[in-house]
Amino acid sequence: MYTPVWFMRQAGRSLPEYRKVREGITMLDSCMRPDLVTEITMQPVRRYGVDAAIFFSDIVLPLKAIGVDLDIVPGVGPVVAEPIRTSEQIAQLRPLDGADVPYISEAVRLLVTELGATPLIGFAGAPFTLASYLVEGGPSRNLERTKALMWSDPHAWHDLMSRLAQISLAHLRVQVAAGASAIQLFDSWVGSLSEPDYRAHVLPHSRYILEGLADLDVPRIHFGVNTGELLPAMHEAGADVVGVDFRITLAQAAERIGAATTLQGNLDPAVVFSSPAVVRARVSSVLESARGLLGHIFNLGHGVLPTSDPGVLASIVQQVHRETC
Amino acid sequence: MYTPVWFMRQAGRSLPEYRKVREGITMLDSCMRPDLVTEITMQPVRRYGVDAAIFFSDIVLPLKAIGVDLDIVPGVGPVVAEPIRTSEQIAQLRPLDGADVPYISEAVRLLVTELGATPLIGFAGAPFTLASYLVEGGPSRNLERTKALMWSDPHAWHDLMSRLAQISLAHLRVQVAAGASAIQLFDSWVGSLSEPDYRAHVLPHSRYILEGLADLDVPRIHFGVNTGELLPAMHEAGADVVGVDFRITLAQAAERIGAATTLQGNLDPAVVFSSPAVVRARVSSVLESARGLLGHIFNLGHGVLPTSDPGVLASIVQQVHRETC
Repeated sequence: MYTPVWFMRQAGRSLPEYRKVREGITMLDSCMRPDLVTEITMQPVRRYGVDAAIFFSDIVLPLKAIGVDLDIVPGVGPVVAEPIRTSEQIAQLRPLDGADVPYISEAVRLLVTELGATPLIGFAGAPFTLASYLVEGGPSRNLERTKALMWSDPHAWHDLMSRLAQISLAHLRVQVAAGASAIQLFDSWVGSLSEPDYRAHVLPHSRYILEGLADLDVPRIHFGVNTGELLPAMHEAGADVVGVDFRITLAQAAERIGAATTLQGNLDPAVVFSSPAVVRARVSSVLESARGLLGHIFNLGHGVLPTSDPGVLASIVQQVHRETC
Repeated sequence: MYTPVWFMRQAGRSLPEYRKVREGITMLDSCMRPDLVTEITMQPVRRYGVDAAIFFSDIVLPLKAIGVDLDIVPGVGPVVAEPIRTSEQIAQLRPLDGADVPYISEAVRLLVTELGATPLIGFAGAPFTLASYLVEGGPSRNLERTKALMWSDPHAWHDLMSRLAQISLAHLRVQVAAGASAIQLFDSWVGSLSEPDYRAHVLPHSRYILEGLADLDVPRIHFGVNTGELLPAMHEAGADVVGVDFRITLAQAAERIGAATTLQGNLDPAVVFSSPAVVRARVSSVLESARGLLGHIFNLGHGVLPTSDPGVLASIVQQVHRETC
């Protein structure tokens, strides 16, 4: 069975050609320039021969597009000028429509033409992870303000999550309408929740997005880090493909989710920093663990780390193709 | 059944009396002054009436004591001047003995006198977490250099881990010899490993420490974050008590480890930021989940967050005592 392979964050800081085209251009500006988005998205496809392109963007972009005052600070991440913690602030988060992100449709159209037969995966953040940036005001190790809002004011929380779900769904539909042939919903930080909390406070909103894409008939990938306990629930939210980080094997993940599952993953991104023999053995071990699955998309268990050697990533793509052709 | 309660990081930045005594004194200096260690360790015992004191220190202190050039940088954490990545550097990590840390014995002796019947828990970092600081040069989100060394050069890795295990064991024995009546071995970042990696590369070294304490007949607590998949292995390493973070319930943890287990935990530290009603319900829920256990020590599932309200922590201690007396 041929196993397709791509890497989360395959486009970006690990590539010298990326660092070159980004010189002097902020992250948010680069996400709003269709020519740059196209170039950056294409770079890893050209270099690695991966089986899919992932739309180059940032999960906070649609929030910027509806007027949230935020920036992406190099070395830090998204920083929100005024953290959103009250019902009044939440009520100001307006719906997104395609007219808010014309540069997204344009970039997808350019990309689809340039990619030819290679699929383009659309990209959006899931409501919990977006909420965490808005409530904390930026990246946070412990998400205490986010969780406190979620537990202490369920009404405000559900209002916030509903609004973010609408925004993410609209953002994904824009990308599919313009030609994206699959989507990935990133809930990067949801692994900080227990399963009961996930089911009560997050799942309905992620489901709204994933089910809201059903009529478009594109594969829906759903991913978060540290989600070993949440995988069945994340699958139930309406994912066709569930991404698995590196803490459990794909075989273990399939046991938890059920046999008829397509999984994505799950090489530890730190493996890229190891010796060639270790890289080869670990890639084989992921492929071996995927053997009983209904389907497998090879990927890392988290994004490409910025200091990764692109040569090692190229060798991984070659190995996956060689061992599964 | 009476449930004892203490909090990881109960001493420290969340307390105004701590911030006051630390004014103008660096973290490492404060850890080397027995008068200050005693005062800081006592502060939460006085304020909260917790059932145990945890020795105030930092896990990198014994590394400093054997001559590693490191500092604890406010807002960052431990920073190692020259990250340790080669066999030659590893060979320079010499064993620790009691004469290296006279201020530790002295502080423990002062504390035991002052504490009276309240037990003092000794404190050390486990080899994996210590190795991660040495190899990465400081805190790291992805531990890629640490894992790469572990996978690519098992000989150097085991040499590093053996040396660190000797240091941690010696450091804990010093504390017990001076009067500590329990110990906790913190492997804070080990939850970034899969279980097979933990068993192959970490468990033997943590076992060396925990079994090396067996003759002292003190309860040995073993804790790490994100360790849902690792709990049985961490128990097998020789722990009498296993600490559980907040991603699974204590009942689930007991199912994984086995019924005859004493567990510590596992209130999410973010709960402290929630409404009083949420705090009460979540504390009750932890106690409820612990009902079938052989033993339970109430604690948070990770350290007290620096911006926690001490009043809320006090109310948690009261509730645990009220509901379990």
